[in-house]
Amino acid sequence: MKLSLFSDYSLRVLIYASLREGRFQLKDVSQAYGISRNHLAQVVHRLGQLGYLETRRGRGGGCRLARPAGEVRIGRLFQQTEDQPAIMECFDQKTNTCRMAGNCRIQSALAQAMAAFYSSLDQYTLADVVTGAHGEVISRILMSVPS
Amino acid sequence: MKLSLFSDYSLRVLIYASLREGRFQLKDVSQAYGISRNHLAQVVHRLGQLGYLETRRGRGGGCRLARPAGEVRIGRLFQQTEDQPAIMECFDQKTNTCRMAGNCRIQSALAQAMAAFYSSLDQYTLADVVTGAHGEVISRILMSVPS
Repeated sequence: MKLSLFSDYSLRVLIYASLREGRFQLKDVSQAYGISRNHLAQVVHRLGQLGYLETRRGRGGGCRLARPAGEVRIGRLFQQTEDQPAIMECFDQKTNTCRMAGNCRIQSALAQAMAAFYSSLDQYTLADVVTGAHGEVISRILMSVPS
Repeated sequence: MKLSLFSDYSLRVLIYASLREGRFQLKDVSQAYGISRNHLAQVVHRLGQLGYLETRRGRGGGCRLARPAGEVRIGRLFQQTEDQPAIMECFDQKTNTCRMAGNCRIQSALAQAMAAFYSSLDQYTLADVVTGAHGEVISRILMSVPS
């Protein structure tokens, strides 16, 4: 079972955003994680569309978290950032080749299991990740990367 | 969120096995689903190793379900057949590149969510998929494919 790299990077960008004071640039988060700017540009753009990041262009511009970290539920975030939402072939009618699709009870069982997965993650917010001792360690790791 | 194709095919083979009377050959299940024999050979081999299928070589040989369908729990099955068990990069130390790995609380949150996912699926057995009206429809679909 795999979450998409897009979800992984989305979370990383939001963790960075919640630990940075003030606005940051794409190159900052790119350097902190060692991920190419091209990859992250798409992620930042999408997080802006979804209302997680406030992005401002031009002089004095940059990104910052658009809502309190305590209001960012991790399950909800991943539900929105998954660019491979079909857990199995039969969940995407366009590409499905399985002859049983539509008649197989596995589809409802899987839908229920995915709901349990996201609901479990929704117990955690971005604040749970970045506050306390864990958050301090992460902050030191990310902010110590030389520009 | 995506389950591997290996898990998908594993389930399909077991559904077929539980609906077939007597032993069947690789070509039978390959024709029923329109999946290449090469792909399915690996799946059948692995399901044999895991004790889900009994496979016998030679004249009068073939495969059949090795345990009652009511004893095959879907969550357990997928846990065993997932060949991409790392839900995120940081779950595989060999390939991880994230600097936060080991210090990030997301890892335990994700482990908990995966447990909720598999536990939800464990409410269902293979028998729940193949018995009753749904099972009859699936059986008709699979067994009506011309050789």
